[in-house]
Amino acid sequence: MNRPDDIVREMLEGMALAFPDIIRLDSQWNNVYRRYRKPGNRVALVCGGGSGHEPAQAGYVGYGMLDAVAAGHVFTAPPAPQVLAAINEVANDVGVFVIITNYTGDVMNFGIAIKMASAKGVKLDYIIVNDDVSISDISKRRGTTITILINKIAGAAAEEGWSLEEVKRVAQKVLDNGRDIGVALTPCILPTTGKPTFELAYDEIEFGIGVHGEAGVKRMKYIQSRELAKIMVDAIADDLKLQKGDEVALVVQGTGGTPYMEKFVFYRDVRMYVESLGLKVFTSWIGEFFTSLDMQGARVAILRLDDELKRLLVAPAYTIAIRTPGIVVS
Amino acid sequence: MNRPDDIVREMLEGMALAFPDIIRLDSQWNNVYRRYRKPGNRVALVCGGGSGHEPAQAGYVGYGMLDAVAAGHVFTAPPAPQVLAAINEVANDVGVFVIITNYTGDVMNFGIAIKMASAKGVKLDYIIVNDDVSISDISKRRGTTITILINKIAGAAAEEGWSLEEVKRVAQKVLDNGRDIGVALTPCILPTTGKPTFELAYDEIEFGIGVHGEAGVKRMKYIQSRELAKIMVDAIADDLKLQKGDEVALVVQGTGGTPYMEKFVFYRDVRMYVESLGLKVFTSWIGEFFTSLDMQGARVAILRLDDELKRLLVAPAYTIAIRTPGIVVS
Repeated sequence: MNRPDDIVREMLEGMALAFPDIIRLDSQWNNVYRRYRKPGNRVALVCGGGSGHEPAQAGYVGYGMLDAVAAGHVFTAPPAPQVLAAINEVANDVGVFVIITNYTGDVMNFGIAIKMASAKGVKLDYIIVNDDVSISDISKRRGTTITILINKIAGAAAEEGWSLEEVKRVAQKVLDNGRDIGVALTPCILPTTGKPTFELAYDEIEFGIGVHGEAGVKRMKYIQSRELAKIMVDAIADDLKLQKGDEVALVVQGTGGTPYMEKFVFYRDVRMYVESLGLKVFTSWIGEFFTSLDMQGARVAILRLDDELKRLLVAPAYTIAIRTPGIVVS
Repeated sequence: MNRPDDIVREMLEGMALAFPDIIRLDSQWNNVYRRYRKPGNRVALVCGGGSGHEPAQAGYVGYGMLDAVAAGHVFTAPPAPQVLAAINEVANDVGVFVIITNYTGDVMNFGIAIKMASAKGVKLDYIIVNDDVSISDISKRRGTTITILINKIAGAAAEEGWSLEEVKRVAQKVLDNGRDIGVALTPCILPTTGKPTFELAYDEIEFGIGVHGEAGVKRMKYIQSRELAKIMVDAIADDLKLQKGDEVALVVQGTGGTPYMEKFVFYRDVRMYVESLGLKVFTSWIGEFFTSLDMQGARVAILRLDDELKRLLVAPAYTIAIRTPGIVVS
């Protein structure tokens, strides 16, 4: 990098230089908008949060997904005026749907922005995503990978011209049927301090991590990939009460610094275990979707599908990180 | 992972489980073939080498690129009988074109396989890729990212029905006009030993690395992204004698463990410096293309283009890692 303070802006500049046909960067804020706006009679989708989770969220701006993203500094919620600017940029008569991850700063700043926009007459609704199954208190669960699946599915619905109420209904359905869990093999290193976010011995796994380099819910010794796959899938399957015969989408991802070789080995183990439970894998995403800087580790997310979710999940999208149809590797 | 000895097989199984419509895995060897064969009157392309460079090379099997890949163990050339099996699988009347990276083991084992196939009457030709500009002795230069651009461009030519001689001509043109250079911020850790391949202080950069965790040609203190971009681009531009007004393709990639945030910041700096030299960027690839396990670092490759190369570079491809048209992010 260059100056740590410039890292978010320079990253967004890199994305805009590479993909000028998909996004444009707001030079006043670190906000990213679609290069070509959606018709005004479609619900607009706004997301955002701290940076360091790339390709989340700027990588999901584009046809079939998001309209605007407010990118905060590394692991820091964007301030309310920045979120408000993003909302105002895409506001229209049919409504704005705001997708918020369940972290104190995001919930507060996005909440203030929503209140301010509402007071000015902007029609909007929102969802707070809390899909991280490692925390038993549901109100404290963090927003992780299911955020991206909501971006995809609610984005496809909005692109088709659904009402604000219907976009919210399908987003809620994704949240009700989707869960995520993560592990770290290394901490991540903050660009501002150059320091790791926690200490971990070479042969230890941090289980149940968030996406900000927080320590997880427990620490364990190295186990084999297939044993780890079983524990992680079981945690999700129990919470979602998955039944034999259920159709699911699988997301298996690294956490920013995980090599492809390990991602594909782990995907194999997750997939084989999921199928051994009698679940049917409709589609898979393998890659990097909601990361934690350079952390080595893995996240697994499972979404239970019905015909409506299946159709919207594979509907066309054209963003930096996700382009469907077809299985996604990023 | 599970057992280190199984890592390559299990990774390939994961790829085949995720993308059964693109590839199939040969159960006798760790060879990967297209699920659906190309017509018999088209030149077939064979590549391969040690594993640990994912998505290279199995990620490039499919329409518009490779027909067969022989995947060796981690950083180890596949044995000659395995390469021979890959050649025989796709051999046809118009010929087989073999793409070999310039490492002793690969050159030897692929060479033996080519001689054995030739002796049995298989029509074939080959290229040895030596694009790594960090070594001044051209015969010793290693095969890195330009291999992937040859897979893409020669693959598009073969898909269109070019003769073996013409496929070789265009592959040689890519090699003559393309160069690569890499740096490491960390070594990589071998799955077999759990040990790093070299020692590097936290504030040091290893300059001019290969793709197997070899030490580079020199060691330097941390510098800013934009200074590093200048040094790396200059090394390539000097060697290729790039001129103001030349059109180029840019490949900016991580080395397996590099987060997206840093890749996009570095892409920005490379792109801005390349444009400051008066070069025109026709297209860019940003992501992970020819990696070194979990190493943190970056590689830059530049290919000088003419109309023929431009057309073949953006011609349709459908593989696990590269799907064109459009700018590629992987």
